Amino acid sequence: MNYNNNRTLKVGNIMEINYDLLKKVITKREPNSYKGTFGRVLTIGGNLNYGGAIIMSAMAAVHAGAGLVTCATNKENLASLHSLVPEAMFINYFDKVALTESISKSDVVIIGPGLGLDIHAIDILKTTLSNIKDQVCIVDGSAITLIAQDPQLKTYLTNKKIIFTPHEMEWQRLSGIPIKDQTEENNLSEQKKLNATVVLKKHHSCIYHASGRISQLNIGGPYMATGGMGDTLTGILGAFIAQFKNNDLDDVVDAAVYFHSYVAQGLSHELYVTLPTDIINNLQKYM
Amino acid sequence: MNYNNNRTLKVGNIMEINYDLLKKVITKREPNSYKGTFGRVLTIGGNLNYGGAIIMSAMAAVHAGAGLVTCATNKENLASLHSLVPEAMFINYFDKVALTESISKSDVVIIGPGLGLDIHAIDILKTTLSNIKDQVCIVDGSAITLIAQDPQLKTYLTNKKIIFTPHEMEWQRLSGIPIKDQTEENNLSEQKKLNATVVLKKHHSCIYHASGRISQLNIGGPYMATGGMGDTLTGILGAFIAQFKNNDLDDVVDAAVYFHSYVAQGLSHELYVTLPTDIINNLQKYM
Amino acid sequence: MNYNNNRTLKVGNIMEINYDLLKKVITKREPNSYKGTFGRVLTIGGNLNYGGAIIMSAMAAVHAGAGLVTCATNKENLASLHSLVPEAMFINYFDKVALTESISKSDVVIIGPGLGLDIHAIDILKTTLSNIKDQVCIVDGSAITLIAQDPQLKTYLTNKKIIFTPHEMEWQRLSGIPIKDQTEENNLSEQKKLNATVVLKKHHSCIYHASGRISQLNIGGPYMATGGMGDTLTGILGAFIAQFKNNDLDDVVDAAVYFHSYVAQGLSHELYVTLPTDIINNLQKYM
Amino acid sequence: MNYNNNRTLKVGNIMEINYDLLKKVITKREPNSYKGTFGRVLTIGGNLNYGGAIIMSAMAAVHAGAGLVTCATNKENLASLHSLVPEAMFINYFDKVALTESISKSDVVIIGPGLGLDIHAIDILKTTLSNIKDQVCIVDGSAITLIAQDPQLKTYLTNKKIIFTPHEMEWQRLSGIPIKDQTEENNLSEQKKLNATVVLKKHHSCIYHASGRISQLNIGGPYMATGGMGDTLTGILGAFIAQFKNNDLDDVVDAAVYFHSYVAQGLSHELYVTLPTDIINNLQKYM
Repeated sequence: MNYNNNRTLKVGNIMEINYDLLKKVITKREPNSYKGTFGRVLTIGGNLNYGGAIIMSAMAAVHAGAGLVTCATNKENLASLHSLVPEAMFINYFDKVALTESISKSDVVIIGPGLGLDIHAIDILKTTLSNIKDQVCIVDGSAITLIAQDPQLKTYLTNKKIIFTPHEMEWQRLSGIPIKDQTEENNLSEQKKLNATVVLKKHHSCIYHASGRISQLNIGGPYMATGGMGDTLTGILGAFIAQFKNNDLDDVVDAAVYFHSYVAQGLSHELYVTLPTDIINNLQKYM
Repeated sequence: MNYNNNRTLKVGNIMEINYDLLKKVITKREPNSYKGTFGRVLTIGGNLNYGGAIIMSAMAAVHAGAGLVTCATNKENLASLHSLVPEAMFINYFDKVALTESISKSDVVIIGPGLGLDIHAIDILKTTLSNIKDQVCIVDGSAITLIAQDPQLKTYLTNKKIIFTPHEMEWQRLSGIPIKDQTEENNLSEQKKLNATVVLKKHHSCIYHASGRISQLNIGGPYMATGGMGDTLTGILGAFIAQFKNNDLDDVVDAAVYFHSYVAQGLSHELYVTLPTDIINNLQKYM
Repeated sequence: MNYNNNRTLKVGNIMEINYDLLKKVITKREPNSYKGTFGRVLTIGGNLNYGGAIIMSAMAAVHAGAGLVTCATNKENLASLHSLVPEAMFINYFDKVALTESISKSDVVIIGPGLGLDIHAIDILKTTLSNIKDQVCIVDGSAITLIAQDPQLKTYLTNKKIIFTPHEMEWQRLSGIPIKDQTEENNLSEQKKLNATVVLKKHHSCIYHASGRISQLNIGGPYMATGGMGDTLTGILGAFIAQFKNNDLDDVVDAAVYFHSYVAQGLSHELYVTLPTDIINNLQKYM
Repeated sequence: MNYNNNRTLKVGNIMEINYDLLKKVITKREPNSYKGTFGRVLTIGGNLNYGGAIIMSAMAAVHAGAGLVTCATNKENLASLHSLVPEAMFINYFDKVALTESISKSDVVIIGPGLGLDIHAIDILKTTLSNIKDQVCIVDGSAITLIAQDPQLKTYLTNKKIIFTPHEMEWQRLSGIPIKDQTEENNLSEQKKLNATVVLKKHHSCIYHASGRISQLNIGGPYMATGGMGDTLTGILGAFIAQFKNNDLDDVVDAAVYFHSYVAQGLSHELYVTLPTDIINNLQKYM
């Protein structure tokens, strides 16, 4: 197998993502474009306890350049959502009619940040997955855990463009591979069964693409080890996929993951910890 | 016809707006003035789902120098409105007594950003249009779509100073002209029937003034292609009309549209996308 | 009469406030001090429609250095109060027990910004005035109008340290002097009947002190002509009076009024309009 | 005994904290770490009136580098919590199941900022103290007063790692020593009975460690004399203890107390008063 015949650095079968990819993906925008050109991102999650997670996902999507962003969340999170990002629209995630209508209009759907694990979360997850058609669907956080717990939910994933973004413990739940056994070989084997892209978040994250490509991140550091980092990544991923439609999807995913750490690395010269909101506030400048 | 005999660049009958117009309109304030001098702007909209739209309209009006700004919106938007712009006052838009009283005191009324299309939106729109007298009324977003859908609503527009701010799809709804047929000739013909000013938002927006003047924007770019841009324009328009009362209205409208893109263009050297809140936070500095 | 024998510029009996007064009043803090040293400010107002007013008053008091600030307002304003200034404490202004207890503990009480004119406002105003003992009480905005309307309320003012901060129209209501007749002589005559300090806000505000001193502001400009400016002044006044207790009260009031315009003037080189929140965010730096 | 000469080493039994300690404690993070590495902080408090206190505690913990921060508070504070720090998670502090579960998962528990003194506060305090096992528990503000009032509450403190952070009046309540008699000898004697660390906040705070060490702060100043300073300290303390687990606890506590004043001192060159939110926003940069 040789998935990576056209990139600068190769490590066995694995391609290392580098700065050149950002330059390839983040291109100058076409003059004659409008907000629809840059896509619609819907981000679903945020229960009463974890509202910040979905807000940071929506913020990241807006600041990373998505044309239109909607946040489907618990109504209790409405005021803080708008206080932080009035550019995002709101849906009460219990309103199934509004939710399914919004899904059908979206280019990218993110589900999971702060969604929680209760019966309502399961219901929202089912509604979402069963309405996904050709949208790219990013499955994060609690949504991964719920799918791991309920094999029936996995049946909704067939023939869809799914991107999982687990950290190692969530990947253990989803794949059944204990963290200590998460070798490339084992990971690849389970990822193929899922027939989805897996962004495995860890020190120097690794991306197993549905296409078969494996990409390796070589930047980022412990200044990113703080709550909300993953939520922020989902928003960047969503915005990149929505707006850079003319690029190869694998390239776009790799670029988003790289860019997230690239911004954090840049800020880390000034900041001991790089908070999600620090990264979000610098996305436009670094792009 | 020759509407534009005193501006630098002419393209047939169309006047290109340029920087000199900003210098003409945005003049030094009279020392002996008070907040009433700079006018009252009322901005109406923002349902449960699109609260950010009306908040950005109010923010833009405050930062662009309106003397007093009131935001009539859904009560759910109160906390985020004040969190972002405590300078703005609040009205529950379901309170007809307060709404009509506020309309009567205003110099400029903006209706539409995030208003939505349901029965409540129609009711608020009717109340507003039927109470407009000699105020300038800026009709944006959902309000345009509602008027397009209901011919009876058009009857409220007669003999009023109306400024429509549609994007191309909204203009198609309002004028009946499909986007592909939106030539200057066709647009002008339908705009004359409306007897109103039409700010047609697109790549290089075009303004068909009620006076007959046609003005063309030649700045702005795809960094502005993001949700909330139009909402922000309504606030700038409102503030300019309210405070620059001694200028020709056509000049003021053109200056506001130009200024909106001028600020975005300035910020675009630093930012890949220029978000509405970025523009709003830089209005005072650029003025 | 000659009230002003020790200041640089004299205009008849009127003293012009100048920068030296700031240097005199805003002194280095004593090392061995704690938050109690710098006083407690209670600011009361902000109904459902004008919540921003009382929030800006509280913000200004915190940023201008008051030791402890409490904001008594409508509960609907709680979230935005804390979002903007978590340093301030909250009281529901309908809770009379909490309100009177807080008044008794305060060094300065501000009442009026955004209070409104309804029956609840009158009730809160009565509760407040009847509980004021030796606190300095700043009466602003709606509270001035209410007192002007109801002679009975004036009876609560006797033998108290009251500072009114009317603009010209409010002064007309309170004093009965039409704006066009608001000469120094007429103003002085009515102010003496009130036996209170009157900060008459206008282009170059004038301060009629209860002591008999008359002070004149010679800075500030039309960049300050925007909603919320007066609310911000109340907070600065409150903080200065609370923390600079060892100074002559007249000097402190004059310094606060001067400082408010001084900061705005400084910012006006950069900003076309200087918003209340701009001034608030720069108070600490300018002090 | 002779506690007081001067400088870095030890003076009699008292050690003066200095900058070198920061360099010792705040070390470069291990590359291969994740958010769990830097610990979980739970901060409990904030009733309807004092919500800002617990929000500032949570903000400080997030910005000072804790891996995961949860804020258990009154539901009314949810919107402002997320508006200011979406990185923090939320728990309704009346939900005992969620509260005890969160305590059991935490490395550090902070209780007290803005908790209040009513029956609900007592109940939450009891629930918290009775569930503390080997977590470090920081007891601040109202929680100190409640414990001082109710000897039964003291029984929960046995064999736990408790850090009290009283100001002088709270220490008087807790220890029974009137402020004027708070000599080192008397303080030490009462602190030993508590068998806990006492951070006695005053002009140049003094720390009586459970270990017997006594540390003295020699920086900080009256620019810190403003409401919310102590709440901010609890968050920094919590974050330092949670993330610098490989250090001696006494060193970490001293470093946190020193760092809090060190940042304030740095900012005081620019700002007349250094507000809690100013300090919070600069924690990452100074670390």
